[in-house]
Amino acid sequence: MRARDLAGEFPTVGMDTPAIEAARLLAAENLPGLVVVDSERRPVTVLPGTQVLRLGVPGYLQDDPALVRVVDEAHADVFLRGLAGRTVRECLPAQARELPVVEPDATVLEIAALMARTRSPLVAVADRGGALIGVVTLDALMDRMLAS
Amino acid sequence: MRARDLAGEFPTVGMDTPAIEAARLLAAENLPGLVVVDSERRPVTVLPGTQVLRLGVPGYLQDDPALVRVVDEAHADVFLRGLAGRTVRECLPAQARELPVVEPDATVLEIAALMARTRSPLVAVADRGGALIGVVTLDALMDRMLAS
Repeated sequence: MRARDLAGEFPTVGMDTPAIEAARLLAAENLPGLVVVDSERRPVTVLPGTQVLRLGVPGYLQDDPALVRVVDEAHADVFLRGLAGRTVRECLPAQARELPVVEPDATVLEIAALMARTRSPLVAVADRGGALIGVVTLDALMDRMLAS
Repeated sequence: MRARDLAGEFPTVGMDTPAIEAARLLAAENLPGLVVVDSERRPVTVLPGTQVLRLGVPGYLQDDPALVRVVDEAHADVFLRGLAGRTVRECLPAQARELPVVEPDATVLEIAALMARTRSPLVAVADRGGALIGVVTLDALMDRMLAS
């Protein structure tokens, strides 16, 4: 059982996809996250659902619990305003992280260790040219690991 | 809209729950993670699904991609062996992290910022005595934030 056997189809977004559309896709399909691909369908990054939330939470609020506290309930729509007119590109973190991307022959254990290390509930499977073949979700992997 | 209005029922596990049972619960119910409670039903920690994976991936493999690579496919059952005979308690990370737990009057934005910061797709809602009231999932929160 290798990555290629576990990979399933999964919706993708592009760098120029409106942030609000990306958030709606995640919510509507109850996805654990989003895969961002370039024009050649190569995975550029994988955004866990919790990091998609960042798209709409202003940077100055993200890491300051005390500040978030004082933002009044009436300003909960600050989330939607944060998304308005922005694209996925503008919302990506500045610093590059280890990408949850594997080659088709990666083993189950390799995928599990990568998910745990990157804290990403989805791992993209790409061919040697870098093009997306499919996505392995945490659910699919857990089902597989517990099947025996 | 406050945490108490968004919180729903959610399965919990205890510190002495067998690790294999915790993993099976996560897989069977397609949960985004698990809430660990003490004997008074106070949340002790919240384990995102990706961190439940850690329960079964031996520590020496978790952070070493090269080493995971050389573990042969035939040893994929190393995951199940890793879980066997262990409890949730034995699988928790040694160092304490910021817990994704809020009071009932936390706002939507406060929950979103906490999820983003802790990278946890679920946040436990506890009363002032610390007892679990319910859980807000990423899905429930996204649906709420995009509803207007």
